[in-house]
Amino acid sequence: MANMIEADMRKQNGMMPGNVQTTLGTYLFDCLKQEGLTDIFGIPGDYNFTLLDELERYKGLRFINGRNELNAGYAADAYARLKGMSALITTFGVGEMSACNAIAGASSEHIPIIHIVGAPPSMAQQAHKLMHHTLMDGNYDVFRKVYEPITAYTAVLTPENAQMEIPAAIAMAKQQRKPVYLVVATDLVMKPITLRSVPMPPRPSTAQQTLQAAMERAKQLLGQAQRPVLLVDVKTSRFHLQEPVRKLAEALNLPVAATVFGKGGFDESHKQFIGIYAGAFGSQTVRRTVENSDCIIAVGLLWADSNTANFTAKLNPARTIEIQPDRVKIGEAEYPKIMAEDMLKALQNSGYRQQTDVVQGPFPYDQAKGSPDELLKAEAYYPRLQQMLKEDDIIVAETGTFFYGLSQIRLPRGAAYIAQGGWQSIGYATPASFGASVAEPARRVLLFTGDGSLQLTAQEISSMLSHGCKPIIFVLNNYGYTIEKYLNVKTEHQKYNQVPNWSYTKLAEAFGGEAFTAFVRSNAQLDEAIRQAESECRNKLCIIEMVAADPMDAPEYMLNMRNYMERQEKQQQS
Amino acid sequence: MANMIEADMRKQNGMMPGNVQTTLGTYLFDCLKQEGLTDIFGIPGDYNFTLLDELERYKGLRFINGRNELNAGYAADAYARLKGMSALITTFGVGEMSACNAIAGASSEHIPIIHIVGAPPSMAQQAHKLMHHTLMDGNYDVFRKVYEPITAYTAVLTPENAQMEIPAAIAMAKQQRKPVYLVVATDLVMKPITLRSVPMPPRPSTAQQTLQAAMERAKQLLGQAQRPVLLVDVKTSRFHLQEPVRKLAEALNLPVAATVFGKGGFDESHKQFIGIYAGAFGSQTVRRTVENSDCIIAVGLLWADSNTANFTAKLNPARTIEIQPDRVKIGEAEYPKIMAEDMLKALQNSGYRQQTDVVQGPFPYDQAKGSPDELLKAEAYYPRLQQMLKEDDIIVAETGTFFYGLSQIRLPRGAAYIAQGGWQSIGYATPASFGASVAEPARRVLLFTGDGSLQLTAQEISSMLSHGCKPIIFVLNNYGYTIEKYLNVKTEHQKYNQVPNWSYTKLAEAFGGEAFTAFVRSNAQLDEAIRQAESECRNKLCIIEMVAADPMDAPEYMLNMRNYMERQEKQQQS
Repeated sequence: MANMIEADMRKQNGMMPGNVQTTLGTYLFDCLKQEGLTDIFGIPGDYNFTLLDELERYKGLRFINGRNELNAGYAADAYARLKGMSALITTFGVGEMSACNAIAGASSEHIPIIHIVGAPPSMAQQAHKLMHHTLMDGNYDVFRKVYEPITAYTAVLTPENAQMEIPAAIAMAKQQRKPVYLVVATDLVMKPITLRSVPMPPRPSTAQQTLQAAMERAKQLLGQAQRPVLLVDVKTSRFHLQEPVRKLAEALNLPVAATVFGKGGFDESHKQFIGIYAGAFGSQTVRRTVENSDCIIAVGLLWADSNTANFTAKLNPARTIEIQPDRVKIGEAEYPKIMAEDMLKALQNSGYRQQTDVVQGPFPYDQAKGSPDELLKAEAYYPRLQQMLKEDDIIVAETGTFFYGLSQIRLPRGAAYIAQGGWQSIGYATPASFGASVAEPARRVLLFTGDGSLQLTAQEISSMLSHGCKPIIFVLNNYGYTIEKYLNVKTEHQKYNQVPNWSYTKLAEAFGGEAFTAFVRSNAQLDEAIRQAESECRNKLCIIEMVAADPMDAPEYMLNMRNYMERQEKQQQS
Repeated sequence: MANMIEADMRKQNGMMPGNVQTTLGTYLFDCLKQEGLTDIFGIPGDYNFTLLDELERYKGLRFINGRNELNAGYAADAYARLKGMSALITTFGVGEMSACNAIAGASSEHIPIIHIVGAPPSMAQQAHKLMHHTLMDGNYDVFRKVYEPITAYTAVLTPENAQMEIPAAIAMAKQQRKPVYLVVATDLVMKPITLRSVPMPPRPSTAQQTLQAAMERAKQLLGQAQRPVLLVDVKTSRFHLQEPVRKLAEALNLPVAATVFGKGGFDESHKQFIGIYAGAFGSQTVRRTVENSDCIIAVGLLWADSNTANFTAKLNPARTIEIQPDRVKIGEAEYPKIMAEDMLKALQNSGYRQQTDVVQGPFPYDQAKGSPDELLKAEAYYPRLQQMLKEDDIIVAETGTFFYGLSQIRLPRGAAYIAQGGWQSIGYATPASFGASVAEPARRVLLFTGDGSLQLTAQEISSMLSHGCKPIIFVLNNYGYTIEKYLNVKTEHQKYNQVPNWSYTKLAEAFGGEAFTAFVRSNAQLDEAIRQAESECRNKLCIIEMVAADPMDAPEYMLNMRNYMERQEKQQQS
């Protein structure tokens, strides 16, 4: 990539090789633009002024101000989910320390964010002067150390190493789908650097013999199989494997299930899609299809508690072909150094084809329920939410009851689904909607959040208003952290799970913006609010506050979870 | 302390030594209550439910819900400034990672916070299961590693080590005035532990011979001095040295100046107080007194850029007796292992006494300025703000223009002054006001914040409303990060330093609460709003939005700073 930039610059400047002059800051932005970025999120602070000044002058990248660093980090996370990568600029100490959750979350969720930190002047650092935003101990490496455990790579940029470190960090982020951390002293940003021809590090590739061995075993399994199934998990979309997975599914004519984390990795309007596999908590039809299968091709599997319905999901390892981004496992045999795309393609061309057509459904929320006058209940509003979805919508689901309920709705074709399945940081979704709106201004963004979660990061509604974003925001007001009440099976009526009761529809005005708002209690009111929002959202941000009739009302998935946990608790007590 | 608890428990239970049974959670809360805590801040999450359930049952400690973890950490910081220590409970991963800034800030600012994290069940940890809120790599030590560089101590609690680790962590926090980190698996909180007689680690004490040597040298300096002065810096209040410092000042009859960070460490209504020493940016009268002094007794000095007006402050080291919490430096000679209290007392009893009385003033904001109809300007509103202060008020100053302006007002007797001089994390002050209000419900809390800063953490106004706190909140609306505009001398009209224009007076209603609000543009309107707020604040929270006539209007301190930085920039350019 550095070579490409250099070539470009040579062309533009008519300069000779080995002679291309730029600045550290410009080179950094060149590298990011090269990755398809058009925006960088962040918050200003005096140590990043040179970065931001350079960015304001730079053509082709916009700086997108958030209301605080955590929120800017969350926004960058969602942006990267849609555009493949994102960047975040914070200031030393106070700025970067506020973004730790967003970056650790990106690490957990396989999201490549290039986190760039502006640091005090190099002279002050070298003299160990006590500058503001430091721990007042003269140590300038301490925050990089904080970031080491939660990123794939960290580097302290200098004019001398920039051409090595920046591409190396970006390559690491792309390859591992993880955040990386770069820090640069404020005075070095405008320093000249000379771009030289640097060979690109080789990209990892498939060991062909290992692939052959894996394919032999896979063909044996497939050949004997009567009821094969394809299971799509989270790393499918994180490692951009949706296309080869779809081709494989179609070539082999397999029924396809997705996990809760993997939702969105396979077109849910596809005639081979059978639903979400979520062990004891989800559809038991899907569960039977997957667990009774005699050959499961599982792509990008992540065996986490919240992805396997508290580990109630059970795949027979002897019958599972597990395809990970850079390795394959079949039964007990591990096949390292196989790139997922190569394995998927080999399987696609294996000649196998399931003869019987896939039997779909029933899907949990395909049927409308609830009379118009009835107060809002999950069983009635989820079908309505599914009904309103359109092709290419971006759905952002907050951790909480919405996360579990929405995991069971059926997405339309082309829809993007954004949620933190594993990290599950409440508050994520509102800034994520901001990031999604910036990444895809032409697509409709729907945010589904709860009252408890919204309160953590509510000010990002202001960022959306001020940047002209027009998502439709559904706030489920159930008077507290209902998900947490479900998860605590030991005590009842926890005071600490209550939250103040806000007037969510008044937030936009307080934030100095204009929004379409609706406050709904019944099915008819929700229907009407959705109808209006669908036309209003062309011109303004929409907020629909949905008041739950019963604070403990929840989707079926959560009722199943609660029952399971209560049984577990009783067993432990006895 | 453990011994004391044990003795207490024996008394209560009539049990024999070595036989006292409690639980890990109860013991932890016993230790915190012993330190004078009555409240613990935090946010619930499923991994800390056992801690919070135990806390709800526990007598004498309240759980104080914040709106997010960063804000709860900031609130805990302010609480510790007033009550000597505080505690914060967060959940694993998502919770603790959101609080990094607050804890790093407490580290920088010498604030002891006991940060307690609830972690996944020990069985899941030992089996390296992939649980939600983790990095999905089976590593359960990663977040403790993140906290290592930004705390004084970290420990993983077990029933076996609790009686060692909890007192050790608290002792470390008290001694170093720094945050510490304790993590406990959710299933271990209710595990029984047996309290045994454990000897307390010795507290550091003064090496008497070193003290004598230091005093000899100090007496020589003082004996020759014509114009001695006492300079109070930040560690004076952090290490609770206000009383011995006051006694020393009175015994020696010295003029007393405070630094910007040290503000609040010495009674500013005292007849010996001469003002704030802030190098080239502050009062030049105070500067002359301090810099021309032939013996400066400097207590708790921290030589940071923002404390020394960009290092323009100059103390003659040969004439300075520098008293740090656990050591003394005179000229080039260092005297380790001297406890500040002992040195202060020895100096107090040295027999030296300045014969001439201290000449006070002028103080920058003692004179009222500006006609009633004039639009708001710093030179007119700072005297008004100083005028409204009352004894025992708690003043919380946000980083930004208010921080620098308020540093120059004169505090009334008994006032507490809360600000982050060194860490300077914008957004700190609003949650800090919440923490201060919880810590001292009988005292009046005045929050001075700017529009830019408030937006980072605005939801903590909701926490104050829901907990019945009634601060008077002044929001200076100058349409952006004015402090940042001042600090950037390289470019003009930075777009990134603009913020959306909120309707600050409408926030309380959106947050579901009731407040007295006023929107003021002129001196007369401010006077009237203050008059009303002074009576309204008995019953409700007050928000006064002060609109700056000129967004670049600022206190004199900042004008001096800007001029200095522009000169520096010109020198670098030439």
